Amino acid sequence: MQLPLKGVTILEFCQYLSGPVAGLRLADFGARVIKIEQPVKGDSCRQLAIKNFWLDESSLLFHTINRNKESVAVNLKNSDDITFIKKLILKADVILHNFRPGVMEKWGLDYASVKKINPGIVYTEISGYGKKGPWKNKPGQDLLTQSISGLTNSSGNNNDYPIPFGLAIGDYLCGNQAVQAILAALIRRHKTGQGSLLELSLLESLLDFQFEFFTTYFQTNQQPKRSEFNNGHSLLSAPYGIYKTLDSYIAVAMMPLEKLNKVLQNKELEKYNESETFKKRDEIKSVLAKCFLTADTNTWLQKMHEHDLWVMPVLNWEELIQTSTYQRLNMEQEFVVGNKKIKTTRCPIRINKQYFLSTIPAPKLGEHTEKLKKELEK
Amino acid sequence: MQLPLKGVTILEFCQYLSGPVAGLRLADFGARVIKIEQPVKGDSCRQLAIKNFWLDESSLLFHTINRNKESVAVNLKNSDDITFIKKLILKADVILHNFRPGVMEKWGLDYASVKKINPGIVYTEISGYGKKGPWKNKPGQDLLTQSISGLTNSSGNNNDYPIPFGLAIGDYLCGNQAVQAILAALIRRHKTGQGSLLELSLLESLLDFQFEFFTTYFQTNQQPKRSEFNNGHSLLSAPYGIYKTLDSYIAVAMMPLEKLNKVLQNKELEKYNESETFKKRDEIKSVLAKCFLTADTNTWLQKMHEHDLWVMPVLNWEELIQTSTYQRLNMEQEFVVGNKKIKTTRCPIRINKQYFLSTIPAPKLGEHTEKLKKELEK
Repeated sequence: MQLPLKGVTILEFCQYLSGPVAGLRLADFGARVIKIEQPVKGDSCRQLAIKNFWLDESSLLFHTINRNKESVAVNLKNSDDITFIKKLILKADVILHNFRPGVMEKWGLDYASVKKINPGIVYTEISGYGKKGPWKNKPGQDLLTQSISGLTNSSGNNNDYPIPFGLAIGDYLCGNQAVQAILAALIRRHKTGQGSLLELSLLESLLDFQFEFFTTYFQTNQQPKRSEFNNGHSLLSAPYGIYKTLDSYIAVAMMPLEKLNKVLQNKELEKYNESETFKKRDEIKSVLAKCFLTADTNTWLQKMHEHDLWVMPVLNWEELIQTSTYQRLNMEQEFVVGNKKIKTTRCPIRINKQYFLSTIPAPKLGEHTEKLKKELEK
Repeated sequence: MQLPLKGVTILEFCQYLSGPVAGLRLADFGARVIKIEQPVKGDSCRQLAIKNFWLDESSLLFHTINRNKESVAVNLKNSDDITFIKKLILKADVILHNFRPGVMEKWGLDYASVKKINPGIVYTEISGYGKKGPWKNKPGQDLLTQSISGLTNSSGNNNDYPIPFGLAIGDYLCGNQAVQAILAALIRRHKTGQGSLLELSLLESLLDFQFEFFTTYFQTNQQPKRSEFNNGHSLLSAPYGIYKTLDSYIAVAMMPLEKLNKVLQNKELEKYNESETFKKRDEIKSVLAKCFLTADTNTWLQKMHEHDLWVMPVLNWEELIQTSTYQRLNMEQEFVVGNKKIKTTRCPIRINKQYFLSTIPAPKLGEHTEKLKKELEK
């Protein structure tokens, strides 16, 4: 199968997560992704180990999100290197960078300058908080943008600390939306012949993600409030949440109380009617919490699934991997670093029943510099 | 500015969030998005109120994610209506559906059938857990897919309950990735003339999102473990997390302990060296927690920013909206329902300094049925 982005070249002037996650998706889709890195250190993510896990001179995390790419190491203060990069820009379709505002300008690689070299370029900028305002030079780091965005008031219960989402959600969302923007701009270029400047930030991605909170807040002027118990979503009624059972936990989504009580047969629950499930959700949830403790998860699942209620077990990673559903998804793939096989997850999208797989590991810093210089001489 | 997807027609056979969120982005990008709904009830999201907030006969949530679309109401058991839909399919570029496996088949609108009508169609399927396995007919609801995916073991602290992400992350991610898939397939169709079948699921999107957890787990066979205190990310070392101060909270990202202690000047912290920040993160974090309680957030921010440390305040929605950074992002836009102005957030992407804005509200159920029938007669 011909990959969608065959023939498209991306120059990735990126570090850490947001930009490289976008580059990875584009590489999986068939683009040629060339990382432009500074000599000696390169992308700072090479030195960012999660759980202190290293594969070679770079971390496991770096390898995971930079597989299937090439690397060019250049000193952008050196005029020969700048000339080389400008030749590369002439051949490229997309530039993607996630430096703080001012950095690409310093190197003469801002959009206005690059556009003169290649007017059709799709120039993509990822910042932390946008390019204006008092925070523009603050680190656009995931936890910090989460904390600014209000998001830390949505998980956990009402009396808890602010609880961040336990993964780099700002980076991941913004990277994914950069892919959308780039693909849309490539379609637009095909129709109009015009390049474009694309601007995204972690903060804007996190605000879009919270569209439910903001839209509700704009209409009501009341801040969404987490429920006291078993909070699943600040804006949803009881029973929505995760409950402890006799042996583990059960996830309970939306369902009419009356239908739920056909299974639970709980006298206390009978007192509440459907119109009170938002206002009195804490009372109702505390009744439910006591009730779910009286039997084990499998018993509840069986009884509740018989009534077509929306419940599922709560699994950890080990339990999930043993399920036949997980195994049928073929979610795993391998790449090789040195003589070591590394297992990772694949792109979540399938096209014509095929997965986007690649065994090409992340490049060593500057691994393709000479090769690319020779290519440009041709 | 010509919008990227001008001239592209999407048929959205969708309900609730995942599909409509994708449709909304495509509509913002300039596509014509036509919702195909069942008569009487339509998209079930019309009846899903968040915080019991309604705008007309449909909820605020429905309006928020279905603005800028058209609606056709058809009874897919009726042969005239099926004929009408097949004529629409002939004119369409993309079909997007998020029904459980088997539903589109029942109506004769599965990929094999649709491809015969329009071989160039980009046919996109969103499921909960993939199309095989014992869960294939279980509700592909956000909280339930989160709970299956292992994700509820990542936010909060180690001794907490499983804590779900307090927003519909599975729906939102999968919708965003459906947009990527559709745009990539449109590019591929332009090059090869071929349509395609795209398959995604909430579960696969949630697994991709957890690539760090899974890749680390595959190499170590150890499950990532949340820290005991102030967890920010299971795989990261101290000090990463949110800390209580004298008056509020502060978000503290990655930084060398020694550099941090230049500000804190804490005797106990001196005992730890950088190589212990993962292994002894709970000890270190409990020392830090005591220390951050001794001054207010602004004092810490000022001192720590002077040393270029990665810290930011923790805001709620009201506080965020008052910042000049938020105001400069122009994140808000309005649409009109009846004679009521409704404020919502805009698409997080900017192209050539322009935002993707639209004042067109969500359609009434079947609002465009007759108009589209007439269009097809031409």
